[in-house]
Amino acid sequence: MTDAERRRTDGPEPRKKGPQKPTLLYAGPPDEWLRWQKALEAALAARGLEARLVPHPAAAPGTELQPDEIDVILYAPTGPVSDFSPFSRLRAVFSLWAGVEKIVANPTLEVPLTRMVDEGLRQGMAEYVTGHVLRYHLDLDRHIFGQDGLWRHDLVPPLARDRQVAILGMGALGQAVAAMLRPIGFRLLGWSRRPKSVDGVAMHHGAAGLAAVLGAAEIAVALLPATPETENLLDATRLSLARPGLRLINAGRGSLIDEAALIAALDEGRIGHATLDVFRTEPLPPDHPFWRHPRVTVTPHIAAETRPETAAEVVADNLARLIAGRPLLHLVDRAAGY
Amino acid sequence: MTDAERRRTDGPEPRKKGPQKPTLLYAGPPDEWLRWQKALEAALAARGLEARLVPHPAAAPGTELQPDEIDVILYAPTGPVSDFSPFSRLRAVFSLWAGVEKIVANPTLEVPLTRMVDEGLRQGMAEYVTGHVLRYHLDLDRHIFGQDGLWRHDLVPPLARDRQVAILGMGALGQAVAAMLRPIGFRLLGWSRRPKSVDGVAMHHGAAGLAAVLGAAEIAVALLPATPETENLLDATRLSLARPGLRLINAGRGSLIDEAALIAALDEGRIGHATLDVFRTEPLPPDHPFWRHPRVTVTPHIAAETRPETAAEVVADNLARLIAGRPLLHLVDRAAGY
Repeated sequence: MTDAERRRTDGPEPRKKGPQKPTLLYAGPPDEWLRWQKALEAALAARGLEARLVPHPAAAPGTELQPDEIDVILYAPTGPVSDFSPFSRLRAVFSLWAGVEKIVANPTLEVPLTRMVDEGLRQGMAEYVTGHVLRYHLDLDRHIFGQDGLWRHDLVPPLARDRQVAILGMGALGQAVAAMLRPIGFRLLGWSRRPKSVDGVAMHHGAAGLAAVLGAAEIAVALLPATPETENLLDATRLSLARPGLRLINAGRGSLIDEAALIAALDEGRIGHATLDVFRTEPLPPDHPFWRHPRVTVTPHIAAETRPETAAEVVADNLARLIAGRPLLHLVDRAAGY
Repeated sequence: MTDAERRRTDGPEPRKKGPQKPTLLYAGPPDEWLRWQKALEAALAARGLEARLVPHPAAAPGTELQPDEIDVILYAPTGPVSDFSPFSRLRAVFSLWAGVEKIVANPTLEVPLTRMVDEGLRQGMAEYVTGHVLRYHLDLDRHIFGQDGLWRHDLVPPLARDRQVAILGMGALGQAVAAMLRPIGFRLLGWSRRPKSVDGVAMHHGAAGLAAVLGAAEIAVALLPATPETENLLDATRLSLARPGLRLINAGRGSLIDEAALIAALDEGRIGHATLDVFRTEPLPPDHPFWRHPRVTVTPHIAAETRPETAAEVVADNLARLIAGRPLLHLVDRAAGY
């Protein structure tokens, strides 16, 4: 007899749990449940938090979902929950992803939504971007591919101080990237939609600012969220303003780029190369032209990977706030979209 | 009539120059003379230094060499001078290279020798090494080569804080590399022949220390000078102590590595990959097995490139010291070999 069967036989259990012992439903990727369970239980125990953590049946077959017992849902767009209406006592949804565009407009969601701002994710993103910026700066592909016996001693790159790198999007991720690129010596340009000041970065904003930044940089990194305003931000017109040969890294969202316009610009060599980690459709279909393009490197959405070990700390911190009735961290402004 | 012919016809010029206006002979790579001339003249002018800068005839055909007028030789092993005995009033040789193993044992050299310790060279070396360390850390080659339509989302690397990187050689270059890798978050191990302390680096020394460092690191960077003690430092025995799959970067000197032993270790996969910038014979001959080995990336001695614009400042500083009778910077200890 399973617990669920026993419960049905015996009738409803008496409610012993007050608001002090909330129930969290794990609704992240099913195959990551065990790793999350371990990390979350450790983070809860480290804080002395009393909470019940249950997996969605998709992640732990044999369990049963009790929507009216769930206080908090740990959500990912690749997880099993997209309809929040059955969860009658739901108090908050904690997204395990930094990007919330797949949930922000969900009409069944009527409780506060937080996004993941995870130090491990920020660090991983900064490492990914720094690696690819240095790959472009040092022209590593020419060496990795060019093992033909010719001693090309003329391939000495300039120093980083003579290389302009643009960061489009100066939120938590963009600032983490800037903080890692700066000590290497790169000349950093930044762009945000609204005026902003960031240490060590020549900041620009608005449409004129975007044109200036794209025209100056040799390497550009897109780190913006997916919102109606950033949809196709890099379209044919914007790409035509780029400094010839620009190397582009998109680690933000696939919707930032007009794919057909990018392919045309790559074909003509106006954009020198692109490293793309995010796409409008993921996984990127095997027949997508990006896979075959000689000037494109596809990576499988690994730049901003939520790492349970660090993200569980953020979940536990926010749960403690929820229990104590304090304001949640990283609340999503659903009108702005992030 | 050339100046030299006129001088021969008219007899010797009266010596107008005292030790206050020394003559520098450029004996670096002939094809880099114009770039050096520009950089050196700017650096001398910026300091108000009175000096005569002349090119070796190999760099400026039509000029003539007057060995008895030369006070200082700017030397590179790829330049035209290897016999210093004709230079009767020579006061110093300034090497334009950091590595001095090709000149340190030269029996015709009887004056002080300085090596190049150039901020631009150190910076370029740190950028090169950081780029290749991140390339290994992020497994960039798998993505660069693996554009086959398969979405391998499992290829998420650990964070830099969980990656141990060893630096063999903790002189000016090793310390510059450590200073660039540290803010990225790598766990740094360092090795030097003698005990040494470096901030943020777990230092080891001696034979036992080398075994410990090689056994722990996933990525190792060799930055030692070529001396009798470092000859074949990484031989079959040392390579067999390495953590299986070690990725090795050699940006020091070719003589650090027993080439046959490295190829055997790569063939067996005990060493996972090697990026080699320096070789026993340079340019590396086109038929050398390193070029064809699937686990080797050859780069054409570009990691520690002397950049005339920054190196000329070091030359001018040392010339000012020579004129003023003050101790020279970066003097080579010819017994130690560096």
